[in-house]
Amino acid sequence: MDLRSKIRVIEGFPKEGISFKDITTLIQDKDGLRESIDQIAALLKDKNVDLVVGPEARGFIFGVPLAYALGIGFVPVRKQGKLPFETIKAEYSLEYGTDVLEIHKDAIKPGQRVAIVDDLLATGGTIESVARLVESVGGEVVSLNFIIELTELKGREKLRKYEVNSLVKYDV
Amino acid sequence: MDLRSKIRVIEGFPKEGISFKDITTLIQDKDGLRESIDQIAALLKDKNVDLVVGPEARGFIFGVPLAYALGIGFVPVRKQGKLPFETIKAEYSLEYGTDVLEIHKDAIKPGQRVAIVDDLLATGGTIESVARLVESVGGEVVSLNFIIELTELKGREKLRKYEVNSLVKYDV
Repeated sequence: MDLRSKIRVIEGFPKEGISFKDITTLIQDKDGLRESIDQIAALLKDKNVDLVVGPEARGFIFGVPLAYALGIGFVPVRKQGKLPFETIKAEYSLEYGTDVLEIHKDAIKPGQRVAIVDDLLATGGTIESVARLVESVGGEVVSLNFIIELTELKGREKLRKYEVNSLVKYDV
Repeated sequence: MDLRSKIRVIEGFPKEGISFKDITTLIQDKDGLRESIDQIAALLKDKNVDLVVGPEARGFIFGVPLAYALGIGFVPVRKQGKLPFETIKAEYSLEYGTDVLEIHKDAIKPGQRVAIVDDLLATGGTIESVARLVESVGGEVVSLNFIIELTELKGREKLRKYEVNSLVKYDV
């Protein structure tokens, strides 16, 4: 199936000059949701993955059904203050200022093999922080997996120490 | 399986006096994730549901794998400003002040049968807004489905025009 045809492109959101890739049209379509999960699951099938990790909120959209499809668990990475138990934090840069992501300290056992998932790879800043968090609690990052990759932003270069998979690539 | 044994209770989060139900321990466990989704899916199996709708962020955690398991699509309800296309808005009350939820105008076709999902039923304010949004775009609410219900907060009474399902009930 051509997943690209189910992704809606919206010009000028959230601000002028941005060509936003809207995955809501992909996931509200039963075949689009099924196929996007199954295509990532197929990439991970023989990798002995123990856990899927994804950042809020769109990482949850693809990460939890992926974990369900693979028959493994899911660990959320959240914005500061949202997780109720003891956490490890990672700061990352935004266009203006910084933000903080957290993972539960006890969410991953040392040596567990982790697939990280998010909807979109842009510059790679967020997902690099997620990978750092996984490693800081002892997890082994098997691969970084995205539905969409914006190739011109060269996130893949920043993340070159990892295996990076994406299903649909856009130049801009 | 006893889902309750996999839910962690944290006293004093996010503030004193609250006995927080932490679902991260449920979903990081492969059997816990699988079973919580399959138990809700079993309740919906013969209901001819067309779409699952859930509010960010924890409604995504259970709603998307549920849609995947049922072989149907998922429609997100998000906080103001997050959805890129034209939306309908609903205001709802918080302990202090109000907040706004949005759904894409074209996400649901008139007459489509919708199961609404969130992690937890407390007073029912959020989910009532979600139901209102679904109805305002022409959807028919089949049922409201929760992993956890805090029975003392009587959300079920506020929502009595709907079928309400929950998997694990707590008095406090």
